[in-house]
Amino acid sequence: MSRTLIIWAHPRTDSLTAKIAADVIAEATAAGHEVDVLDLYRENFNPVLGEADEPQWENIDHQFSPETMELAARTLAADAVVFVFPIWWYSFPAIMKGYIDRVWNYGLFYGEGRRSGIAKVRWIGLTGESQAGFKKRGYDEMVVHNFNVGIAGLCGIADSSVELLHDTLGEEITDFDAHFEQLREQARRVIRAL
Amino acid sequence: MSRTLIIWAHPRTDSLTAKIAADVIAEATAAGHEVDVLDLYRENFNPVLGEADEPQWENIDHQFSPETMELAARTLAADAVVFVFPIWWYSFPAIMKGYIDRVWNYGLFYGEGRRSGIAKVRWIGLTGESQAGFKKRGYDEMVVHNFNVGIAGLCGIADSSVELLHDTLGEEITDFDAHFEQLREQARRVIRAL
Repeated sequence: MSRTLIIWAHPRTDSLTAKIAADVIAEATAAGHEVDVLDLYRENFNPVLGEADEPQWENIDHQFSPETMELAARTLAADAVVFVFPIWWYSFPAIMKGYIDRVWNYGLFYGEGRRSGIAKVRWIGLTGESQAGFKKRGYDEMVVHNFNVGIAGLCGIADSSVELLHDTLGEEITDFDAHFEQLREQARRVIRAL
Repeated sequence: MSRTLIIWAHPRTDSLTAKIAADVIAEATAAGHEVDVLDLYRENFNPVLGEADEPQWENIDHQFSPETMELAARTLAADAVVFVFPIWWYSFPAIMKGYIDRVWNYGLFYGEGRRSGIAKVRWIGLTGESQAGFKKRGYDEMVVHNFNVGIAGLCGIADSSVELLHDTLGEEITDFDAHFEQLREQARRVIRAL
């Protein structure tokens, strides 16, 4: 049985991101995965890396803060990690960036040949911008490179892919309900293919 | 007289980042700039964007949270904004990402033809990686595109540039003191050329 950790971030539980996260959780559960959910906002995660969580380049076995050690254990127990989040400034919301900063730390996820042991990671990002606009300005390539190579790759997770859900603000979309159903299906398909 | 806002982020005041920030502040002061310093860690900035700071696409004159409105006013008063930070996962530390998420908001820095009015922005990022390694894996282009186009460009700041200070961990550097002096000079040069 596959253990899947779903990490999501949005200030509102009635947001489109929350709905997509709920779909992802339901789909993984229906597929028989053992599901863990990390709702960064509701768990009041503190994204500010303090001194206790600075990488210790001289000590690969360093013990970080209790919160970091606990979340690292929770994350490393997963076979697959799925991130669900709005794209802000072509990256994560700060709360999710801080989860990476603090938890995916030296000695735990990478360093001196160490690997996370996580088999798969999926990055499901919602954006108000269109696919054409994203491509035209080179943001798709930029985001994919950052997530797949700069983060997953460094932690030895070769099977990493980014799924962008576009046009979430409904600009130039005539039937938004139908469009949003398509985005939900796009997200569920990512989980079915895990 | 040029008004320069220097925004920096690092958990420790004895870090290399803190030293570079101090150099940048001293150089701007010596050059006669009117200097404001935003030390995100010591000012206990909260990078988690809450409901009060969500962009209101239907109301470009929306009033965000008091902290956001105050920091936006402080930032928009500047002619030049200089960021000093360690590069973590090829981006900002979460605390600085959250400053952008919350403060560089819709209606304040961009939207419906609005522009920030800031003339120049400089991104001074410290990284343990070498310039050759950064280039080889396409991280230089990725970071530059994100900061100059994806952030500054969207806010109408055409004069934006990224200065990467490499090899801050001293790997493969024989004389680290001399190397660090070069990095300090590299940062000061950015300010002299403002």
